[in-house]
Amino acid sequence: MLEVSIAGASGYAGGELLRLLLGHPQVRVKQVTAESAAGSYVHTVHPNLRGRCQLKFVPLAALEPCDLLFLALPHGMAMERIEKFASLAPRIIDLSADFRLRSPKDYVTYYGREHAAPAWLERFVYGVPELHRAELQRANYATGAGCNATATILALKPLFERGLVERAVVEAKVGSSEGGNTPSLASHHPERSGAVRSFAPVAHRHLAEIRQELSFGQPPEVHFSATAVELVRGILVTAHCFMRQPVAEKDLWCIYRESYGSEPFIRLVRERKGVYRYPEPKILAGSNFCDIGFEVDPESNRVVVMGAIDNLMKGAAGNAVQAMNVMCGFPETAGLEFTGLHPI
Amino acid sequence: MLEVSIAGASGYAGGELLRLLLGHPQVRVKQVTAESAAGSYVHTVHPNLRGRCQLKFVPLAALEPCDLLFLALPHGMAMERIEKFASLAPRIIDLSADFRLRSPKDYVTYYGREHAAPAWLERFVYGVPELHRAELQRANYATGAGCNATATILALKPLFERGLVERAVVEAKVGSSEGGNTPSLASHHPERSGAVRSFAPVAHRHLAEIRQELSFGQPPEVHFSATAVELVRGILVTAHCFMRQPVAEKDLWCIYRESYGSEPFIRLVRERKGVYRYPEPKILAGSNFCDIGFEVDPESNRVVVMGAIDNLMKGAAGNAVQAMNVMCGFPETAGLEFTGLHPI
Amino acid sequence: MLEVSIAGASGYAGGELLRLLLGHPQVRVKQVTAESAAGSYVHTVHPNLRGRCQLKFVPLAALEPCDLLFLALPHGMAMERIEKFASLAPRIIDLSADFRLRSPKDYVTYYGREHAAPAWLERFVYGVPELHRAELQRANYATGAGCNATATILALKPLFERGLVERAVVEAKVGSSEGGNTPSLASHHPERSGAVRSFAPVAHRHLAEIRQELSFGQPPEVHFSATAVELVRGILVTAHCFMRQPVAEKDLWCIYRESYGSEPFIRLVRERKGVYRYPEPKILAGSNFCDIGFEVDPESNRVVVMGAIDNLMKGAAGNAVQAMNVMCGFPETAGLEFTGLHPI
Amino acid sequence: MLEVSIAGASGYAGGELLRLLLGHPQVRVKQVTAESAAGSYVHTVHPNLRGRCQLKFVPLAALEPCDLLFLALPHGMAMERIEKFASLAPRIIDLSADFRLRSPKDYVTYYGREHAAPAWLERFVYGVPELHRAELQRANYATGAGCNATATILALKPLFERGLVERAVVEAKVGSSEGGNTPSLASHHPERSGAVRSFAPVAHRHLAEIRQELSFGQPPEVHFSATAVELVRGILVTAHCFMRQPVAEKDLWCIYRESYGSEPFIRLVRERKGVYRYPEPKILAGSNFCDIGFEVDPESNRVVVMGAIDNLMKGAAGNAVQAMNVMCGFPETAGLEFTGLHPI
Repeated sequence: MLEVSIAGASGYAGGELLRLLLGHPQVRVKQVTAESAAGSYVHTVHPNLRGRCQLKFVPLAALEPCDLLFLALPHGMAMERIEKFASLAPRIIDLSADFRLRSPKDYVTYYGREHAAPAWLERFVYGVPELHRAELQRANYATGAGCNATATILALKPLFERGLVERAVVEAKVGSSEGGNTPSLASHHPERSGAVRSFAPVAHRHLAEIRQELSFGQPPEVHFSATAVELVRGILVTAHCFMRQPVAEKDLWCIYRESYGSEPFIRLVRERKGVYRYPEPKILAGSNFCDIGFEVDPESNRVVVMGAIDNLMKGAAGNAVQAMNVMCGFPETAGLEFTGLHPI
Repeated sequence: MLEVSIAGASGYAGGELLRLLLGHPQVRVKQVTAESAAGSYVHTVHPNLRGRCQLKFVPLAALEPCDLLFLALPHGMAMERIEKFASLAPRIIDLSADFRLRSPKDYVTYYGREHAAPAWLERFVYGVPELHRAELQRANYATGAGCNATATILALKPLFERGLVERAVVEAKVGSSEGGNTPSLASHHPERSGAVRSFAPVAHRHLAEIRQELSFGQPPEVHFSATAVELVRGILVTAHCFMRQPVAEKDLWCIYRESYGSEPFIRLVRERKGVYRYPEPKILAGSNFCDIGFEVDPESNRVVVMGAIDNLMKGAAGNAVQAMNVMCGFPETAGLEFTGLHPI
Repeated sequence: MLEVSIAGASGYAGGELLRLLLGHPQVRVKQVTAESAAGSYVHTVHPNLRGRCQLKFVPLAALEPCDLLFLALPHGMAMERIEKFASLAPRIIDLSADFRLRSPKDYVTYYGREHAAPAWLERFVYGVPELHRAELQRANYATGAGCNATATILALKPLFERGLVERAVVEAKVGSSEGGNTPSLASHHPERSGAVRSFAPVAHRHLAEIRQELSFGQPPEVHFSATAVELVRGILVTAHCFMRQPVAEKDLWCIYRESYGSEPFIRLVRERKGVYRYPEPKILAGSNFCDIGFEVDPESNRVVVMGAIDNLMKGAAGNAVQAMNVMCGFPETAGLEFTGLHPI
Repeated sequence: MLEVSIAGASGYAGGELLRLLLGHPQVRVKQVTAESAAGSYVHTVHPNLRGRCQLKFVPLAALEPCDLLFLALPHGMAMERIEKFASLAPRIIDLSADFRLRSPKDYVTYYGREHAAPAWLERFVYGVPELHRAELQRANYATGAGCNATATILALKPLFERGLVERAVVEAKVGSSEGGNTPSLASHHPERSGAVRSFAPVAHRHLAEIRQELSFGQPPEVHFSATAVELVRGILVTAHCFMRQPVAEKDLWCIYRESYGSEPFIRLVRERKGVYRYPEPKILAGSNFCDIGFEVDPESNRVVVMGAIDNLMKGAAGNAVQAMNVMCGFPETAGLEFTGLHPI
């Protein structure tokens, strides 16, 4: 059994990670940290875990050595403590943004700060198995990806890596859990309920990752906007791709099947009839799937690609467990078998 | 034109009051106060009022004399400043709980504090026109009622005043705006969304008002629980009344029509078919109606009475405007004509 | 008093029209038609109108002459009966799609059928006052606009009429009332609740109107996709405009103020802080506003314009009343003063 | 491996059953029936099962022998075909209401029809393991329980079996999936969304089961009302129990722990602080838990007991799998380990 700990387990991603790891057949959860909740049972923060385990939160300072350490801390904390964390565990998977970007300069541009440990950037693999499986298999350090970035990159990669896209305009519709568990007026229920709220029409931070991962020999032209909608978990990205040349529907099927045909967590969703003809995030809650669909605009060179994920699963904790499975040689779907619910 | 001001206009009830008063044909809004928002246009806090007026918030200390002063301050503030407020305006309508209870002792029991101005309690009329219209017509000081209390009392009064009820068990289902505009983890969207949350199964403060107003010569046996549901505005109370003797449906029609037949804001809702057979709070959003329906349990002496209101309207600001209309001799429905939306 | 009737008053747009007309100071509602509900009080279908009027639905065949006739019938019915309707009323405002497009060919392309009365197409004004006020003032026949089209056109017109936009990609997020009041599995609550559902990624019918109204000497390049989100009323369009040349934020302010500065129902919404920095449809429920905001992408020639409306108001019934006001010389805001609610 | 089939697998309960059985380590799903969807892959109806299995629906007439047959057919179909079904499988678990009541007369009273196979009533065990585990262990025929009845009975049984309750008034708040997957105007999203709708204030059918199972030597006085709230999955029952004599909080702890201390799917939820102090159905979606909490009213002999379940899980499919586990000697939690999600 692999002994794992979670630094920062009181947040939404950390809690989801804990839920998954408690059900993983090859893992034992050793410690979970939280500062203000230190000393409390985990179910006081994550009520779904009531009766599931008897773990209590410990402060970060009490962290002991383990086989693999998950970091689910606020952005900026991991980079400042990476030496310390590396001394505690031979393998680290970080869910924050601290090691996602290859170029230290991007941290200045997108996060407004100098990176505190730039030498570590190249040691981390961008830990989305569908993008970097081979590197993950021999990696000790992996970073999770931004949730919006994950949905966008997975939806678009087959087209960009073939050099087919001239320009992509991506609109993400996102749920409230993406904002974390800190209350604010914007997240106050009477204000947030029923909202259709443009919160990042331009300059979203995840653009840095998106461009990094969609660069196949040339800088990709990708534009991104995000709108908050009434939903707790889930992201739907709608990517309007203007193609360099006309592409037929059957070509798209070939391309996506070729890229993702053997991926355990990517499903192509495109039905002629029924309610669920395209990807729909609500039925993915709790699952690690990324559902992808597409439609060709008959009157222009536009292809609309849709991608849906649960932001806390494939967009955070689920992907992290999947990355662990790849790094540790476990079956890639171990602990991630939940299919999602319908209706929900 | 009556010159009115609102002390405490940045909260939800105060904002609703402002919206109504701006549309009232016989009123001019003079000042609106808010501490942290002082100096800002009202639409920065109440975005629906954008373009509707050019008022800015002023601090409480800047309040000037006016014809009628509405108080929509946090509980406890009005009782401490009532002498000051009374020196500014000959008429006051307070929306807080500070002057609702006739007995000073009840403040200790239900609000955990001594009343700061007990001599003022008897000067205030419990300002629900359906209960105290005649007193309101000659009153200078009126208090608003608790939103849950309003729905409960209006639903039950016709039965209690006729001495028909032995015991009533009231379950209120309430929206999130009832909790005010201060964010907390309980109101954080990912936590509050989709909730069916028992927050006051026993000992709700509004019981004090309910019992006060339903006492017709004897202490009424009324039990009350409140459950938060997914809704921003609205309350549905379901009151299970165990009757002293069997009552037929046609008797109930007679009773309710006799009590409320000429009330402009009470509608009896009981249809044999269709979707809206009983009161439904969602179609009341923005309206001042209290919809009341009932059903006789054929196998027991139980009558189920349902009452629905918009907690910010008939449960707060709308009722306050109605009370003002009565006090000032305006048409009782002035400024309150909005019928509610469907669908919504 | 203008005597008006509504043909097709049992649907959502027809019901909203009835609500507005009942509150209009210069109008008397004469008849409202519905086939299956004929003989029933209007509140059996529109529960918000309980107690508001004593009208009953009559069948279409019972329609009598009136001063102005609103048509809110299913698409295709108005064009087949237009001669009959024109014999009943000197003025007609049609809310269906039957007279929106100037070119009969477009009906074949977008609606899959030959137009039944092509000679009438040129007699109808596309009845959005912000676009065709002068024509409306002397028109007897006006057509409403598609709800998505209204939001899109109003958001983009100032840029297109100045020839500034090379390409626009529009993503609409829409509520469930847009689909009308006929139940289906797609609208069944367990399926529709919480959905983020791409239902028209390409080839939406409203594109025909959008292109017609945004053609200023040249065919506009506009792409449109629609996604259903959890919301009953409301549309937010996010329009990504790729500009022919760089445009600064202050230029946009000038442009939009110049175009809309004196419009009673268009508000520019762009705040530096607060929750409601951009247009938000939820606070528009029941109001006739179209809120418009924008943001300049600092790293490209992209401008993101956002437009929000209540699809049943500015997108249907509210706009129709506004058009009537213009046609009849009434104050343009008569009957449309409701500001929307907050919180909601 | 136990070979099981599901008759009626296109409904919500049948689909949930299929989801659970596909993940059950000791079960192989042989056939799933549906009439209109016969010939289609199951994921066309249950989109969450995409990629999970390659089963297609078959018509009921094509059902072959199997080890255990689940019936998830509309009420009335099982009783008419029970002989046929019994000839196909030695063990049957029926999720409909057809075999829940012991007295044939109750079918006339509560379901308005004569029972078609009254001799079979006594062969079926009311299949809630917490109530009838010993009988289930030796049963071949089990019936599921009504979802509202399950929540109510489990919440109240410890009090009723000890003879402590004089009268109980139960208010259930329920989600929309309880109504099944057939669209209607009442379930149409614009109408159902945000509803707080009393749909069965008196005379709910589940009362028959509730009274049957809470009769411990005397007919229990239980009253029941149900209100639909904005929620897809989930039930919260709030049971106001008027006790024969005062009961202290610590007594209630003893009682509930004694009754349920070793139950794998019942959790006592009662916290002094935090958001989730009492049972909350939303965090139970997909789990088989019944969470129970209580509060003593300090000013009367009233105890408020709250019980929460997922109506499709512990209220239908989950309980059926649990019953199968008991009947077949499998670990009782097999296939039911999912803990629920937070946030959701």
